[in-house]
Amino acid sequence: MQLGLVGLGRMGFNMRERLRAAGHEVVGYDRNQEVSDVASIADLANGLTGPRIVWIMVPHGEPTKQTITALAEVLSEGDLVIEGGNSRFTEDQANAALLAEHGVKYVDVGVSGGVWGATNGYGLMAGGDAADIERALPIFDALRPEGPREEGFAHAGPVGAGHYAKMVHNGIEYGLMQAYAEGFELLAASEVVTDVPATIKAWSRGTVVRSWLLDLLVRAVDEDPELQKLRGYVSDSGEGRWTVEESVRNAVPTPVMTAALYARFASRQDDSPAMKAVAALRNQFGGHAVETNEG
Amino acid sequence: MQLGLVGLGRMGFNMRERLRAAGHEVVGYDRNQEVSDVASIADLANGLTGPRIVWIMVPHGEPTKQTITALAEVLSEGDLVIEGGNSRFTEDQANAALLAEHGVKYVDVGVSGGVWGATNGYGLMAGGDAADIERALPIFDALRPEGPREEGFAHAGPVGAGHYAKMVHNGIEYGLMQAYAEGFELLAASEVVTDVPATIKAWSRGTVVRSWLLDLLVRAVDEDPELQKLRGYVSDSGEGRWTVEESVRNAVPTPVMTAALYARFASRQDDSPAMKAVAALRNQFGGHAVETNEG
Amino acid sequence: MQLGLVGLGRMGFNMRERLRAAGHEVVGYDRNQEVSDVASIADLANGLTGPRIVWIMVPHGEPTKQTITALAEVLSEGDLVIEGGNSRFTEDQANAALLAEHGVKYVDVGVSGGVWGATNGYGLMAGGDAADIERALPIFDALRPEGPREEGFAHAGPVGAGHYAKMVHNGIEYGLMQAYAEGFELLAASEVVTDVPATIKAWSRGTVVRSWLLDLLVRAVDEDPELQKLRGYVSDSGEGRWTVEESVRNAVPTPVMTAALYARFASRQDDSPAMKAVAALRNQFGGHAVETNEG
Amino acid sequence: MQLGLVGLGRMGFNMRERLRAAGHEVVGYDRNQEVSDVASIADLANGLTGPRIVWIMVPHGEPTKQTITALAEVLSEGDLVIEGGNSRFTEDQANAALLAEHGVKYVDVGVSGGVWGATNGYGLMAGGDAADIERALPIFDALRPEGPREEGFAHAGPVGAGHYAKMVHNGIEYGLMQAYAEGFELLAASEVVTDVPATIKAWSRGTVVRSWLLDLLVRAVDEDPELQKLRGYVSDSGEGRWTVEESVRNAVPTPVMTAALYARFASRQDDSPAMKAVAALRNQFGGHAVETNEG
Repeated sequence: MQLGLVGLGRMGFNMRERLRAAGHEVVGYDRNQEVSDVASIADLANGLTGPRIVWIMVPHGEPTKQTITALAEVLSEGDLVIEGGNSRFTEDQANAALLAEHGVKYVDVGVSGGVWGATNGYGLMAGGDAADIERALPIFDALRPEGPREEGFAHAGPVGAGHYAKMVHNGIEYGLMQAYAEGFELLAASEVVTDVPATIKAWSRGTVVRSWLLDLLVRAVDEDPELQKLRGYVSDSGEGRWTVEESVRNAVPTPVMTAALYARFASRQDDSPAMKAVAALRNQFGGHAVETNEG
Repeated sequence: MQLGLVGLGRMGFNMRERLRAAGHEVVGYDRNQEVSDVASIADLANGLTGPRIVWIMVPHGEPTKQTITALAEVLSEGDLVIEGGNSRFTEDQANAALLAEHGVKYVDVGVSGGVWGATNGYGLMAGGDAADIERALPIFDALRPEGPREEGFAHAGPVGAGHYAKMVHNGIEYGLMQAYAEGFELLAASEVVTDVPATIKAWSRGTVVRSWLLDLLVRAVDEDPELQKLRGYVSDSGEGRWTVEESVRNAVPTPVMTAALYARFASRQDDSPAMKAVAALRNQFGGHAVETNEG
Repeated sequence: MQLGLVGLGRMGFNMRERLRAAGHEVVGYDRNQEVSDVASIADLANGLTGPRIVWIMVPHGEPTKQTITALAEVLSEGDLVIEGGNSRFTEDQANAALLAEHGVKYVDVGVSGGVWGATNGYGLMAGGDAADIERALPIFDALRPEGPREEGFAHAGPVGAGHYAKMVHNGIEYGLMQAYAEGFELLAASEVVTDVPATIKAWSRGTVVRSWLLDLLVRAVDEDPELQKLRGYVSDSGEGRWTVEESVRNAVPTPVMTAALYARFASRQDDSPAMKAVAALRNQFGGHAVETNEG
Repeated sequence: MQLGLVGLGRMGFNMRERLRAAGHEVVGYDRNQEVSDVASIADLANGLTGPRIVWIMVPHGEPTKQTITALAEVLSEGDLVIEGGNSRFTEDQANAALLAEHGVKYVDVGVSGGVWGATNGYGLMAGGDAADIERALPIFDALRPEGPREEGFAHAGPVGAGHYAKMVHNGIEYGLMQAYAEGFELLAASEVVTDVPATIKAWSRGTVVRSWLLDLLVRAVDEDPELQKLRGYVSDSGEGRWTVEESVRNAVPTPVMTAALYARFASRQDDSPAMKAVAALRNQFGGHAVETNEG
């Protein structure tokens, strides 16, 4: 089927390839004209036969808001917008409402898989009305991995549910990564286990901890057994924070997800003000404190 | 090849099947004569042609110690004992030393895979001398999953390294399980995601969080979407505690593994003495306290 | 000096007493006419000679908003409103802006001390313009504990800073309470320490952990040595959550404050959905799972 | 009364002063002859009239063990040894047994207060037989702070209970310090609170968080408002680790104490191997990974 696609960065670019390989007709727009099929969002709308479907794949926040606003101007009654970026679930209601003023439908989709999705397919979680989601199924089928549809795609609930599901997915992801990472550090600290890379690789099959993330860790350790080339400095992209905020809002204890997020925060501090305060306290009740306080 | 196997509980019984299916000759001993091939450990030793290999698969602690002691009496110079149970890595040195007095070699193996190992094969991590491990490779090859040997088996280091690796494996496992569990609770608490089982199932392919544990969670939620039939009461088997103790010993911060362990502790408390104390404190500085204190 | 006081609940009622005892003239208003000095907020405004000062001490959220709105109607240019309740610091800007439209000044004050403040005095943290705070100093001096002013009162910063400081104060409070509570539980679990109440009481003087909260714990344990009369069920009042949200917003790792908050969340769950999920996972890779899955 | 004192480091030296000021006769021994009253432990024993009491105040572990062994040689039936150092409670049984072979009694005492104890007195928690503790009460009374005995001294239980109580005390101490430290960091990160030192000082009286540790933090921030002169590098002395190990042993969840310990561990790492692993994982599923993996 025919699809407009706004945003041809790493993710959007790959998705256009995958959709075209599946036989769909994709009109892509990006501010970067080198990769764009059309010159403007208006051209994109004009290049599609109604009722149109337009997938958004731009950074969350302001860029997504601007794209929604721009699409509201050029789309018409009965068209459908699919927000596939990393929006916070709380923004989907506003997006849907704005488009609804123009009779345009809205579906939000959480997309997982990173750069590997281009070949493996993407895990998809969608929120919206059943009819709208039904209509876009051929697109979802092209993007999701091969195998039974329900193992790579879900209609998670009404508008917002797709991004909510993706948010929780990422919270889990933080926890999983931190669990493997702590295991790696313990093995590395051990004087008993002498072949850490072989040990981790041996977890690839048959064990309880086997997973795709483990496979990636095996790759990383194959390339650089002690991970010497990397700094232990880890960014966070928003979903991890939203997950903690959502767990606080719902009074759901999430110690593992939160510990994983805080470990990232700490990894980015040159020096910890909190630990300065602990050092100061120890200094105060230890002996030297008294001496300096006498001065 | 020929192998003695002490302990034919759920794990040992399955392993005997898998080894025999691979063409090995297994003489199994268990206190439960219904499943045992021989009447005693002495008979087991007599039933094997030297140099013998005997695999131990009994509960850790006292039972393993007793088996090691019994085997030391009936085995001879050049025989090999493989401790495949859940011993703590700190016990392996003593086991090896006791057997070494009789010229018997010792290898420790961490085994992962649960009941699924019978069909999928077991992930194996071994500790000991290279020559001893080399000698037992046909056994390891029969037990491990199909595929490249290094993806289901590792020689992790000297004696103790197999159980150390398994300990860390289980620490990671605790963290992974808790991460998924927190995600499940957040989804269940959400008023936005209305189809939790479908959402979790959609993570099976293409996503960053796909794993064998996720597949098991999908199965569990398929059977009982709200997990109503289960109590949130979770035991811990030792390795999780040892992992935390080892991280404390090595000054390795493991917030995720530890949070997962503590969540299990808390799950088993009818009421928390600590939270009684917090309630008492709030009571003291809140108004009612003053009233009752006046009495 | 003269002061209007809106809200004569437990805190406001005590504060009126303390202010009057210090020689101030207080006109109090409460919806509960039994404790109120005047019939309405309008009467309260009329009962004061301008330029007026009115202190708000009502529950945060809607009640505070309504009081601010009502005061904006009846106060005049040059009057001053002091918001002494538990507002979130993010609400102070809006409060100040609304009042500023009528030329009314705004100061926010975080108040600590609970019911004990009536006799001990309250710890006060204020946010606002220096001139406005200067003007209210006699009020602050009457409410704060005896001793040097700076040990019980601070001008923490511009509007919002008072409630921000109180929020952090409460986050710390959560952490302190949980620390003592965990210590209590460990002592109670110990087979070595046989006199827990005496042990805790002995920490009252000379030790590093001595504090007012410890004194309260001593009182609680004096009354009920095993805290048998209490359930380990602990509410949270908002500030603890805001502190965690603020730490997430600022990428400040606060593992202790957050753990204390999550322990409260968990204390209120009859059964933990997350721990059901962990139990389900263990069940899946344990033996019984296979049996039931066959069906 | 008369007392032998082995170990005249910072703590022991101060204690000798305090005991003498209270009218007790103290014979002190230290390897450092400059501060020692006698040349050897034998001389110390000879300098006391039986039945003797000897207080040990040397570093825990090997030095304490050696001192116990040496005292066992020179003391006699009916003498009493008080171990006031930082021994782990698990070592007290062995100490008591060794001395019992010579008819020498044993009491263990946890001592809190740091350098401030010299003037304020020390918080004391004792373990041992009632008769032995009764006998040493004049010593305890001289060392503890003024005020009711039970507010600075407890007979916590049998041998080991004194050090157990001190261990828990220190676990709490870690949690308290971390709670204040996190609050300090949040205030420092805030764009709203502009006077952090004044805010913290205002918590000194009337607030729920007032404590001796807070007073020390006020002092530290008075001297160095942003704690710029200190590195956020914090040692741990053993008791914090033992507390976590003991909580694991007793299945008592202690998230706050443990988080405080782990924050110290992390503060001492130049770079975190675990966070390298997380960075590696992100790298693997991000775009650059694919590029480098192609090579």
